[in-house]
Amino acid sequence: MLNDAEAEAIPAVKAVFDDIRTVRKSDFINNFWRGLANDPTLLKRTWKGLKAVMMAEGALDPLVREMIYIAVSTANGCTYCVHSHTAAARAKGMTDAQHGELLAVIGLAGQTNHLVTAMQIPVDPEFDVSRG
Amino acid sequence: MLNDAEAEAIPAVKAVFDDIRTVRKSDFINNFWRGLANDPTLLKRTWKGLKAVMMAEGALDPLVREMIYIAVSTANGCTYCVHSHTAAARAKGMTDAQHGELLAVIGLAGQTNHLVTAMQIPVDPEFDVSRG
Amino acid sequence: MLNDAEAEAIPAVKAVFDDIRTVRKSDFINNFWRGLANDPTLLKRTWKGLKAVMMAEGALDPLVREMIYIAVSTANGCTYCVHSHTAAARAKGMTDAQHGELLAVIGLAGQTNHLVTAMQIPVDPEFDVSRG
Amino acid sequence: MLNDAEAEAIPAVKAVFDDIRTVRKSDFINNFWRGLANDPTLLKRTWKGLKAVMMAEGALDPLVREMIYIAVSTANGCTYCVHSHTAAARAKGMTDAQHGELLAVIGLAGQTNHLVTAMQIPVDPEFDVSRG
Amino acid sequence: MLNDAEAEAIPAVKAVFDDIRTVRKSDFINNFWRGLANDPTLLKRTWKGLKAVMMAEGALDPLVREMIYIAVSTANGCTYCVHSHTAAARAKGMTDAQHGELLAVIGLAGQTNHLVTAMQIPVDPEFDVSRG
Amino acid sequence: MLNDAEAEAIPAVKAVFDDIRTVRKSDFINNFWRGLANDPTLLKRTWKGLKAVMMAEGALDPLVREMIYIAVSTANGCTYCVHSHTAAARAKGMTDAQHGELLAVIGLAGQTNHLVTAMQIPVDPEFDVSRG
Repeated sequence: MLNDAEAEAIPAVKAVFDDIRTVRKSDFINNFWRGLANDPTLLKRTWKGLKAVMMAEGALDPLVREMIYIAVSTANGCTYCVHSHTAAARAKGMTDAQHGELLAVIGLAGQTNHLVTAMQIPVDPEFDVSRG
Repeated sequence: MLNDAEAEAIPAVKAVFDDIRTVRKSDFINNFWRGLANDPTLLKRTWKGLKAVMMAEGALDPLVREMIYIAVSTANGCTYCVHSHTAAARAKGMTDAQHGELLAVIGLAGQTNHLVTAMQIPVDPEFDVSRG
Repeated sequence: MLNDAEAEAIPAVKAVFDDIRTVRKSDFINNFWRGLANDPTLLKRTWKGLKAVMMAEGALDPLVREMIYIAVSTANGCTYCVHSHTAAARAKGMTDAQHGELLAVIGLAGQTNHLVTAMQIPVDPEFDVSRG
Repeated sequence: MLNDAEAEAIPAVKAVFDDIRTVRKSDFINNFWRGLANDPTLLKRTWKGLKAVMMAEGALDPLVREMIYIAVSTANGCTYCVHSHTAAARAKGMTDAQHGELLAVIGLAGQTNHLVTAMQIPVDPEFDVSRG
Repeated sequence: MLNDAEAEAIPAVKAVFDDIRTVRKSDFINNFWRGLANDPTLLKRTWKGLKAVMMAEGALDPLVREMIYIAVSTANGCTYCVHSHTAAARAKGMTDAQHGELLAVIGLAGQTNHLVTAMQIPVDPEFDVSRG
Repeated sequence: MLNDAEAEAIPAVKAVFDDIRTVRKSDFINNFWRGLANDPTLLKRTWKGLKAVMMAEGALDPLVREMIYIAVSTANGCTYCVHSHTAAARAKGMTDAQHGELLAVIGLAGQTNHLVTAMQIPVDPEFDVSRG
């Protein structure tokens, strides 16, 4: 992985890093972005996508988006992602009680997902969203 | 899978089904619970866990819990669970705009989870929640 | 997917199908093997591997092996595999009570796997099997 | 994560830890339970569920349950869970030969699960457990 | 899911559908894009990303990219994705022999991924790409 | 895990290790094979399978096979496998540009797999490979 100096010697990388710093109001660039710096096009597209989805005004509270993100990352077993977005959720005000409930829902879904798959439950016609 | 009549001939199953109907204010029992009816103890424990996690008063809005549930179920590839909890989220007032953002966050997390794992990004010490 | 006649017109496929029928004492060839018939080398290697792991004399009861197989297939979301190996487990004598407990363990593991990952629990030094 | 002293200062946590020690006849509390100690309700419900599924008298041998648990945890990529339940299986008498066969079945299922999904094999009507 | 007429009544959707038709030289719009039509912003961003990654000139052959895509989709258990990208790979010239080897590699990786995780193999220092 | 001396004291293990060294033209035996050394039969079968799939002459370039392997391992969250096969791909000539595109395809597939599953998109009849 490139270190900060190596990464920022690439102008297209420096431009993204500068935008990350401005948007986040922090000098800290976490490892994910430095890993992507080997491919400035992928770095730029990924950062742009993340800004659009996680930071734009919208119908879901930013903290709710972080919790959804943690839920997906947990089910995908992405250690880094759980760490970084739990930190982000904390920074956005997630309380201990909210974290506890997030864990409880994730655990419950893990359990019932497995039960459903193990029993091969057919979809009730009442639930078929793809036909909506 | 037992049909309703077979399932409700088992008193321990009927007790759970009655509680489901009372709590949900609806006569409809979806296939998941009928699948579990073959094992009344597992049925009862699962319903009790679901009530405690999804329906009790708490720090997270019930709709937020449904969206977290959908997120986990998507990453686990549980077709039935996505269908049933998208229906539940709709019933709790999820708007098209909220659904669109939920999908966008789930998609983004899927993408970045894979990028992180493919690059084997080490956890920044700043993010290490397990040491908290 | 090739139908039976097309598949068995390939001598290397017919040889494997004949062995499947002999070993299983049944004429029925399920879809998985017909799907693999497009690549007789892969078909042969896969059948040979399955015989060695699932059917050879060994330290684990054949029914236990089927239940372990179902557990993996559930967590991997493999619908076909859950169906086919639940049928195989039934054929090997799995009772309703055993099936119920299998489901309960699978569900519990699904739940606690997710809780552990969401909390990023560090491995206790007492448990580190890789150093054994 | 709370250390033992912090965790046990919470009476509802101490009650669960005491029960864990009694049931297991050991003073050792592993990290999973300490991680859950931040949410005593979730801790209690999780421990209660685990006792009911893994430790109650039943139709499956306790060692078989541990092996099923390891199988799910492997497919879910839960490092901690594989470590802790491999240790538990060893403590319940799992031999090297049994462990080798467990690995072989897990590996085979991983392989055939992927082959089935990559070929999109349709379920044989003979196997459809959900209609049972 | 919106049908074609409903979807194309939305100008931002029609613009993307027109581009899909032009780029692919085909009138056919598959269900994935119609599903995304409920959220024109997400539709546009997803199509733009797919064009950049799958269709731009680059260092990897377009057929190789399709096979990598199938590999990920298989491991994620995405039925639709395996179907649609196997069709795409066929359209780009994938032969039966190449498909057979793709399946064999996917199956092998599935097997060894599970073996590695079940044994909790530590990374050899020689392989640590994150330190590169 | 056995160390080299312990492992090679078992003749069936030494035979496989010798073949690995000959085929790879290197003295280095990575941890995966040493982990399997506890079960010489499983070791031998796994090595034989890997040679047949990854090293035999065939329709796919060896580097392409490594990239497919990395794709599966990423989606399965197998840290060790991503590390070892990224090293193998590098050894077979994978360039930075190829690695960047591999990551981009893996990330895109991760995203669209999740979108498809979250929307429960039905398979277009045009794509149904299982009926081929």
